[in-house]
Amino acid sequence: MPTIDWVDGAVEIVDQTALPGEFRILCLSTVDELVDAVRRLAVRGAPAIGVAGALGVALAAREYAGSPDALAAAVHRIATARPTAVNLARGVALAAAYLPAGPAAVLAEALAVRDREIASSAAMARLGADVLVELCGAAPRLLTHCNTGALATVVGGTALAVAFELHRRGALAGVVASETRPLLQGARLTAWELGRAGIAYRVAVDSAGPFLMARGEVDAVIVGADRICANGDVVNKVGTYAHALGARAAGIPFVVVAPESTVDMATPDGQAVEIEDRGAAEVLSFGGTGVAPEGADAVNPAFDVTPAALVTAIVTDTRVVRLDRGETLTAPGAAPGRTPG
Amino acid sequence: MPTIDWVDGAVEIVDQTALPGEFRILCLSTVDELVDAVRRLAVRGAPAIGVAGALGVALAAREYAGSPDALAAAVHRIATARPTAVNLARGVALAAAYLPAGPAAVLAEALAVRDREIASSAAMARLGADVLVELCGAAPRLLTHCNTGALATVVGGTALAVAFELHRRGALAGVVASETRPLLQGARLTAWELGRAGIAYRVAVDSAGPFLMARGEVDAVIVGADRICANGDVVNKVGTYAHALGARAAGIPFVVVAPESTVDMATPDGQAVEIEDRGAAEVLSFGGTGVAPEGADAVNPAFDVTPAALVTAIVTDTRVVRLDRGETLTAPGAAPGRTPG
Repeated sequence: MPTIDWVDGAVEIVDQTALPGEFRILCLSTVDELVDAVRRLAVRGAPAIGVAGALGVALAAREYAGSPDALAAAVHRIATARPTAVNLARGVALAAAYLPAGPAAVLAEALAVRDREIASSAAMARLGADVLVELCGAAPRLLTHCNTGALATVVGGTALAVAFELHRRGALAGVVASETRPLLQGARLTAWELGRAGIAYRVAVDSAGPFLMARGEVDAVIVGADRICANGDVVNKVGTYAHALGARAAGIPFVVVAPESTVDMATPDGQAVEIEDRGAAEVLSFGGTGVAPEGADAVNPAFDVTPAALVTAIVTDTRVVRLDRGETLTAPGAAPGRTPG
Repeated sequence: MPTIDWVDGAVEIVDQTALPGEFRILCLSTVDELVDAVRRLAVRGAPAIGVAGALGVALAAREYAGSPDALAAAVHRIATARPTAVNLARGVALAAAYLPAGPAAVLAEALAVRDREIASSAAMARLGADVLVELCGAAPRLLTHCNTGALATVVGGTALAVAFELHRRGALAGVVASETRPLLQGARLTAWELGRAGIAYRVAVDSAGPFLMARGEVDAVIVGADRICANGDVVNKVGTYAHALGARAAGIPFVVVAPESTVDMATPDGQAVEIEDRGAAEVLSFGGTGVAPEGADAVNPAFDVTPAALVTAIVTDTRVVRLDRGETLTAPGAAPGRTPG
């Protein structure tokens, strides 16, 4: 079943805070419920929250029909529920453009956003698998961070979809799933998806990644992205940058897989991106139990910036941009290899 | 009170698995109890387990008096309770050398090992603080990993003792304590020690370290060591290498503080060190609650190797070796700056 969908006038999501212990479906029938689900990461992953944004506007168009000011405020609440991933604001903007045409038109556009994300996943999987085989030869051992599987999209995935595709081709020797503190999307969600797919995997603490690469246990690192800047800087789950440093030091490829909807040519580089700090509580408690001493403070950047210089290739649903060969991002749809403008 | 001591014919330790929730003293009166405490990290930190090794032989000399074979086996069990830190085997060897002279002589030597570790802590704090001020100017903001305070030694500490000393001098602007998965020595123990010392600190997930450095929030990284190889490679808690990569990329100093007892001129480099894998359970559960799906596997290297090329300076209780200036380690006691010969 899809991670997010429109069912009987409401948004249905797989509750990612309950996995892997429990597979629970949440039915979000108001804007407030949807915003809350986005904020507490019940739905997460850049492509999935892009769809959540579009479907959220469809909810808003019904809930606030006849109250233009309240409707505008609701759309604003959705667009700003999380600051870093470009997909959320983009999904909201695409659906909101149809507000003058009425709720049915908004819903139609939101469903089109959903359908485009579904289509892009299969394309990324194919292109990414081809690139990995080109870079690493047959049957690479991959390291991935956070969760970029079906749970981060609608179906399929981004970076993890490439692992699934390599496995289908019999060309995958195993995966290291970096646990992804503080919320453990790797240990909980990626491990769950890899196990269901029958792929051999090992969970590792995040900080072990660079050492496992240095020890020769990883052939390539493959991650998703929450925002790809015009210069190729990649904003993704905190820890991505450390893995990229490890990959560079070990001389192995570092590949980013994300749909075109993640490419943001309006953002020049990573310095221009607001990095969400999700507060101390996520860091200081484990499974509801406080671990740090009373009064402890924490810094909790949810994302980090990997400079373009550390990225081997960016794979989207329409193109492969080999940054290691000097290719640069252009506006989506234009031919790769030329500078924008 | 000291982290480890000899009291009424037994070894007393502060139980580090219970902190910060509970300050509990364990009384270890047999070799088996001591080995178990070392294995499950109730006593940890290279200097502290060196003392545990020496005091363990004092226990063995009493427990197995009159059974030479059983005594030899017990000493072997202590020396091999954990494989990576050189201090454990070294502490055992120093005390075991006195076995022919009887239990009293063994105990006297074990207490001398303890006293030398106490003396070395104050010396490291002074030398390390001088180096930090030299490298960073007044009031640096430090990032540290794992726990290298009083709890890792007998009193005082290694790297964290330098932070305490800078704080006493009014020359410390704050500390980022890297949480140190899987066992959270940073979030539990370092945070507890920093809080008691009145030092401003923030806990961060391990993988955020390199990004906080890139963002300009850290002036130097300061860590301990479980073993320092002849070529300057540093074996320390997993995650140290990733922080060293981050420090190099950010252009900030990476300083290692450890007693001479950690320097192992018999080990040529990091590749020659057996890295302890502590098994999947530590990674896959949090506070006793399983987090990964059933059947999940994990890789759990407890340590990693930071190449000498990434280390700015090694500070011991007797010397400062500026690797960044081309100085090399020599046998302890010899003048720095010359190759061993």
